[in-house]
Amino acid sequence: MNNFTFYSPTFFAFGKDTENDAGSYVKRFGGSKVLIHYGGGSVVRSGLLDRVKASLEKEGLEYVELGGAQPNPRSGLVYQGIELCRKENVDFVLAVGGGSAIDSAKAIAAGAVYDGDFWDFYCGKWIEEALPVGTVLTIAAAGSEGSCSSVITNEDGMLKRGADGDAIRPKFSILNPALTQTLSPYQTACGITDIMAHLYERYLTNTKDVEVTDRMIEALLLTMVHEGPRVIADPNNYEARANIMWAGMMAHNDSCGVGRSQDWSSHRLEHELSAVYDCAHGAGLAVVMPAVFTYVMNHDVMRFAQVATRVWGCQMDFEHPEVTAKAGIEAFRSFLISIGMPKNFAELGAKEEDISEMVKTLCDVNSNGTVGGFVPLDKEACTAIYKLMV
Amino acid sequence: MNNFTFYSPTFFAFGKDTENDAGSYVKRFGGSKVLIHYGGGSVVRSGLLDRVKASLEKEGLEYVELGGAQPNPRSGLVYQGIELCRKENVDFVLAVGGGSAIDSAKAIAAGAVYDGDFWDFYCGKWIEEALPVGTVLTIAAAGSEGSCSSVITNEDGMLKRGADGDAIRPKFSILNPALTQTLSPYQTACGITDIMAHLYERYLTNTKDVEVTDRMIEALLLTMVHEGPRVIADPNNYEARANIMWAGMMAHNDSCGVGRSQDWSSHRLEHELSAVYDCAHGAGLAVVMPAVFTYVMNHDVMRFAQVATRVWGCQMDFEHPEVTAKAGIEAFRSFLISIGMPKNFAELGAKEEDISEMVKTLCDVNSNGTVGGFVPLDKEACTAIYKLMV
Repeated sequence: MNNFTFYSPTFFAFGKDTENDAGSYVKRFGGSKVLIHYGGGSVVRSGLLDRVKASLEKEGLEYVELGGAQPNPRSGLVYQGIELCRKENVDFVLAVGGGSAIDSAKAIAAGAVYDGDFWDFYCGKWIEEALPVGTVLTIAAAGSEGSCSSVITNEDGMLKRGADGDAIRPKFSILNPALTQTLSPYQTACGITDIMAHLYERYLTNTKDVEVTDRMIEALLLTMVHEGPRVIADPNNYEARANIMWAGMMAHNDSCGVGRSQDWSSHRLEHELSAVYDCAHGAGLAVVMPAVFTYVMNHDVMRFAQVATRVWGCQMDFEHPEVTAKAGIEAFRSFLISIGMPKNFAELGAKEEDISEMVKTLCDVNSNGTVGGFVPLDKEACTAIYKLMV
Repeated sequence: MNNFTFYSPTFFAFGKDTENDAGSYVKRFGGSKVLIHYGGGSVVRSGLLDRVKASLEKEGLEYVELGGAQPNPRSGLVYQGIELCRKENVDFVLAVGGGSAIDSAKAIAAGAVYDGDFWDFYCGKWIEEALPVGTVLTIAAAGSEGSCSSVITNEDGMLKRGADGDAIRPKFSILNPALTQTLSPYQTACGITDIMAHLYERYLTNTKDVEVTDRMIEALLLTMVHEGPRVIADPNNYEARANIMWAGMMAHNDSCGVGRSQDWSSHRLEHELSAVYDCAHGAGLAVVMPAVFTYVMNHDVMRFAQVATRVWGCQMDFEHPEVTAKAGIEAFRSFLISIGMPKNFAELGAKEEDISEMVKTLCDVNSNGTVGGFVPLDKEACTAIYKLMV
């Protein structure tokens, strides 16, 4: 195991009706003038926004609002949010929504106290300082509610990039599984896929002897395998929603990714797809992951055989471990299809003729030639992997 | 799943040589005058104490020392520590050692800023305020490095009791697995048993539909089943030590115990044994747990069958689940014996004739008649369970 540090000082309030305590948590973590940042109309229509506002008012807190955060959140709205924070002397940013609203809120929080262009952080600058951020989560997926990361798409060139820093880790996050019951099966499945991707990205490691984190990742994958179909079959299943929601946080606060190299090639390859086609991140990942795994499998067959037997219930073929490894990838692909995820470029709305342009952005513009920590993937490899998705 | 809050704001530095950063972490978390609190001579003999002191000096920090924390730490030393903190204007307590030194340091930290007798906290008063605490951990066992709990034995009546409060959760904890390589196989096995007990205490729940935390607990148990024998066979196996050390923290920071009722009857029954016979807590637990599980098994046979199949590799007997449940308990018992733990009163140095007195202290003095959240155990039940250990 590699040396590491781990710090996850987010306060989590989990369960029914917990959004009504948003105001008291903002106060506890030092806020007095709040920017409420949210996405589309569902937060308004469901009455959630009103409940959150009422809880702020109850604590005597002032607030301003900024809606409009969309999937694959854009830099334009971030600039608006930063301006609003400065003009209104906002001292706390409260995201109400999913990963997009939260990531956008984190970017605003960092940009509001930074002299330069916030996009610097998305070009590699570590975030040292930010307004405190809190979240009321409405979809189990991104894990942004417990992470120190944010992903934003710059409309100037449609570059989708990430930024990190302990300063943007939420001070508190409110997780009420009941709020996710109104999600469509498709949105729910996208969330499940994203959570599983966060787990696989950590699972694909070159660090040896990492039993404890391997087992924890497998535990969370097994949870998704069990609870995913339950919640797709019955969207109102609170218990299944609750298990998925806590797993989604644990999958990405890095407690199961510490001390080991990680991959993240699937996320990188997917970001090109959602930047270009504006598809749902989870849907893109569903198409990307089986292709990546098929391509890199031979780098460590036993690792893929391990997840195949421990998570996917495959019988180990001790004479031909590659058979088991492959069976695990196919079981994962079938699982994703069974919960309603797309399986190829056509179903995603992506086009083969765009591959060379995406590979160029991916390897030349966004990286130093290769992507991924498990197997460094160059332009040729990325091209081959995208072609597996056609 | 039940509603819950979860807050684990401890900074963890994990890996080789990390104790040399103790000074910088004390500084980061606001300390200037430190009480270094430790246990026996091994911390001195190994040179660890000198390295920690050097790291404090490097940061220009002042310190005073108090050694002598012993297994089942005593109230007498806590009073000494409190006096020393007040006299020397200590503003940070740094524990160097295992669960005993840490628990004793937590009691000192709480008592130093409290007007009354610190023992109040161990009679049920929540700890609201304390000096900040940091730890340099030398044994993977108690999980106190990431928990908000402390257990102290009052020499006046040999009452062993616990106290809790977010204020005593360590600000930072330094976990260097190499520091645990000098532990004897017996001490190591006691630690492994304690970690597994923290997991089983959470596993025995009456809350339904807790897949995510069930799976995480099983993951950590599987880690112990795999790494335990490796480290007993080769005490210098750094990798096995590392996996056990992180599992020990995760087992007790409650990330896998949230949203579910828990048991803790084994700990309560064991505390009487270690209070009276001063045996190692882990050794006591090894004798107590199989007896408790055998006694309560019929309360939820399927739960015991689940852990038997998922952790102990037992084949599920679908017609007679109680056969599988029992096989899992026996597999656990055999595992404990295989790593060198005692199996009964005689091997522990406990005496059948003391049972009635222990049960009296347990149920009359320490509790309101019963112990345990899974099955409330009254005097009769506790007596029967102790008799199973003879």
